Amino acid sequence: MASLDRLIKEVCEANRALPAHGLVTLTWGNVSGCDRSEGLVVIKASGVAYEEMTAADIVIVDLEGNVVNGGGRPSTDTPTHLALYRAFEDIGGIVHTHSAWATAWAQAEREIPLLGTTHADLSAHPIPVSRPLEPEEVDEDYEGATGAALIEALAGRHPLEVPCALARGHGPFCWALTPTAAVEAAITLEEVARLALLTSLLDSQVAPLAAAVRDKHFMRKHGPGAYYGQP
Amino acid sequence: MASLDRLIKEVCEANRALPAHGLVTLTWGNVSGCDRSEGLVVIKASGVAYEEMTAADIVIVDLEGNVVNGGGRPSTDTPTHLALYRAFEDIGGIVHTHSAWATAWAQAEREIPLLGTTHADLSAHPIPVSRPLEPEEVDEDYEGATGAALIEALAGRHPLEVPCALARGHGPFCWALTPTAAVEAAITLEEVARLALLTSLLDSQVAPLAAAVRDKHFMRKHGPGAYYGQP
Amino acid sequence: MASLDRLIKEVCEANRALPAHGLVTLTWGNVSGCDRSEGLVVIKASGVAYEEMTAADIVIVDLEGNVVNGGGRPSTDTPTHLALYRAFEDIGGIVHTHSAWATAWAQAEREIPLLGTTHADLSAHPIPVSRPLEPEEVDEDYEGATGAALIEALAGRHPLEVPCALARGHGPFCWALTPTAAVEAAITLEEVARLALLTSLLDSQVAPLAAAVRDKHFMRKHGPGAYYGQP
Amino acid sequence: MASLDRLIKEVCEANRALPAHGLVTLTWGNVSGCDRSEGLVVIKASGVAYEEMTAADIVIVDLEGNVVNGGGRPSTDTPTHLALYRAFEDIGGIVHTHSAWATAWAQAEREIPLLGTTHADLSAHPIPVSRPLEPEEVDEDYEGATGAALIEALAGRHPLEVPCALARGHGPFCWALTPTAAVEAAITLEEVARLALLTSLLDSQVAPLAAAVRDKHFMRKHGPGAYYGQP
Repeated sequence: MASLDRLIKEVCEANRALPAHGLVTLTWGNVSGCDRSEGLVVIKASGVAYEEMTAADIVIVDLEGNVVNGGGRPSTDTPTHLALYRAFEDIGGIVHTHSAWATAWAQAEREIPLLGTTHADLSAHPIPVSRPLEPEEVDEDYEGATGAALIEALAGRHPLEVPCALARGHGPFCWALTPTAAVEAAITLEEVARLALLTSLLDSQVAPLAAAVRDKHFMRKHGPGAYYGQP
Repeated sequence: MASLDRLIKEVCEANRALPAHGLVTLTWGNVSGCDRSEGLVVIKASGVAYEEMTAADIVIVDLEGNVVNGGGRPSTDTPTHLALYRAFEDIGGIVHTHSAWATAWAQAEREIPLLGTTHADLSAHPIPVSRPLEPEEVDEDYEGATGAALIEALAGRHPLEVPCALARGHGPFCWALTPTAAVEAAITLEEVARLALLTSLLDSQVAPLAAAVRDKHFMRKHGPGAYYGQP
Repeated sequence: MASLDRLIKEVCEANRALPAHGLVTLTWGNVSGCDRSEGLVVIKASGVAYEEMTAADIVIVDLEGNVVNGGGRPSTDTPTHLALYRAFEDIGGIVHTHSAWATAWAQAEREIPLLGTTHADLSAHPIPVSRPLEPEEVDEDYEGATGAALIEALAGRHPLEVPCALARGHGPFCWALTPTAAVEAAITLEEVARLALLTSLLDSQVAPLAAAVRDKHFMRKHGPGAYYGQP
Repeated sequence: MASLDRLIKEVCEANRALPAHGLVTLTWGNVSGCDRSEGLVVIKASGVAYEEMTAADIVIVDLEGNVVNGGGRPSTDTPTHLALYRAFEDIGGIVHTHSAWATAWAQAEREIPLLGTTHADLSAHPIPVSRPLEPEEVDEDYEGATGAALIEALAGRHPLEVPCALARGHGPFCWALTPTAAVEAAITLEEVARLALLTSLLDSQVAPLAAAVRDKHFMRKHGPGAYYGQP
């Protein structure tokens, strides 16, 4: 279980990074991590303050949501995280926040258009917004349905090509290979959302970034011949 | 009087929390608490700086506004606080600020529409704005009339269902069971106001949050079967 | 000269307060003070960083701008300060910044409308913007002409009733009885400018604050029967 | 090589200044310096965090991009820096960031209009935006073509008269005599971009700053008879 212990520590630090990067107010956000070899997910307990958080505030659940150990109740958003982990087998970390600029797009019920290279460094696609939920979906399994609608929003694209989506009227979810990388995606998304909103104030009809530049930026960072960062 | 001493300490800390959360500039804000068993209200003295504030800068008044002890003049907004405490018997703390995003809605003389789940986590209703005061009301008892107009703005709803209202042209008032919880409501309101304004920049005609999602969020946090936070 | 020494110290601290309150970027701002008994003005040296500033970076000039002592060249805006001190005999401190929200109004060449009680706590009038300068005025004595245009912008009102004005296309100037109070006016103006701009995003045609509320707020803070703050 | 050692130290400190001034998120920005006597350019390694950066994370290249020493891969934007150094023989430092307000103008594909004296203190011209790149330019030498388009955007003006330009859809590049001065230009540009965007929210058709005031400000700071700062 050494890998699980490392994951708990990483999730704990990733949760504490959320307020440090200005992504959360009060307790509105959570990071989880998935240990694929154990089939377990570790996630922040519900309503716990980040500064005071220790490994004891991390709850361990299996991929069906059964609490395996941990002293508290897991985040209310846990079924959303689990739906994403079950659907996206390559991801190992998820972040959910109500970060302001991304949430503004979610509340406006609009995808974030791809307007610049900062966005293309994250994804070569707009950041999608999930469809409205039916009242029955909300009644029966709200958090699970939220996850299902986020998965639908990717329209079959690989989750590492579209590493974020907006839950309509709610806020962003981001995912990556690890919890630490998911926090980096959440930081990036928030800045991308801010840039797109400021841009739209200057020109509400601005054209998307040219396709050649878009693909160049995504590929130089994420493609097979990537040359951003150190080898 | 041990409970009153505890309340003084809590009100003192709650006032100091206002600048720490970016809710106030200079001395523009105040927190009060009500000890229902004693029938007394403790409130920040007028014009005192938060950082230097000690229990000696807290003024104690009865529910009619008579100063019981305390070295200073109470906040000029005291009659507004007292009107709210007399009308809303279940509340024990009130916060008033000129926090920027909420004040922008107050100055625009518009209620804050319910556009997302962050708002629904606070209230299942728009945040109302008080009616204009008549010139005679301003002349005779401005601060008391401000309180009366805030109470009217709730239109008979329970104050814990609508824990905030905007004084028209002025700024927000928030209330809760305790002064600490009222500060949390003020932090939440400011973020809700910011999200709503940013959303309106993307779509000035955006529809309110779907009713099913709105009620789900309010009830999972505040309803009889609430499952947010730790039991 | 004890009063002059005290003034130098106050001006030094007031200059250092500008970055602490987010009012300046790099070295774009200055505070001066006037010792009326000596007929001398003390002001920040030009281009000096605030953090490193000591009394040695304060320059002393007479009301005509002759340098009396001090090792450096006074702020380039000194002739503007002097014009204001000569015209407004009751003031003892002036602050000039390029603070972002107030400067946006100056660049838009619009007065700041009186939209809320935060503004009325500062002044019962809109914050005026100065008229365009003629090219000859710019050529002959730009900084002096800037001061003259600010004085004109008050349209004969007392400078303590309109404690700020915007130099068109440039930025705000604020004044008060003391340098410390002028910094407080500059902090207040910046927040008032921000609130007014955010309000205008929600409603670009919003009506000014009701006159009765406006006068009530100004008078309860600055009138003969003022009851804000401690007696 | 003492001058090269000093330059490495200066570039290292200039890179660390970027997050301190709020100009970068994560690792999205870089500062370089050029030692003209050696014909060498020192630049940040790609993808390195600013806080951890030491001289060991600085890469040295010649003006054709051959790595001379340094343990890492240089910033992916290095060919853009080199194109600028080859074309602008008087400059000794370059900064590239994705700072939010300047990047919003780049994404809106608009030059930053000259709306106030803060801008005129930096340049007497609008801040230009580069033309769209052809797909073949992107394929063949994207970063070099970005530099060529920035140079074209100056339309023959001297680079110290127009010390910044926006790479279309990407973000700002700024240059100056030294890396330290280039960081100061980047700080100024970001504030100028913010002021211009806020101004455009108040009046999207506002006229540029009067020519006489514009030239006065640029010349009093940068002209032959400059009188801003200390002699």
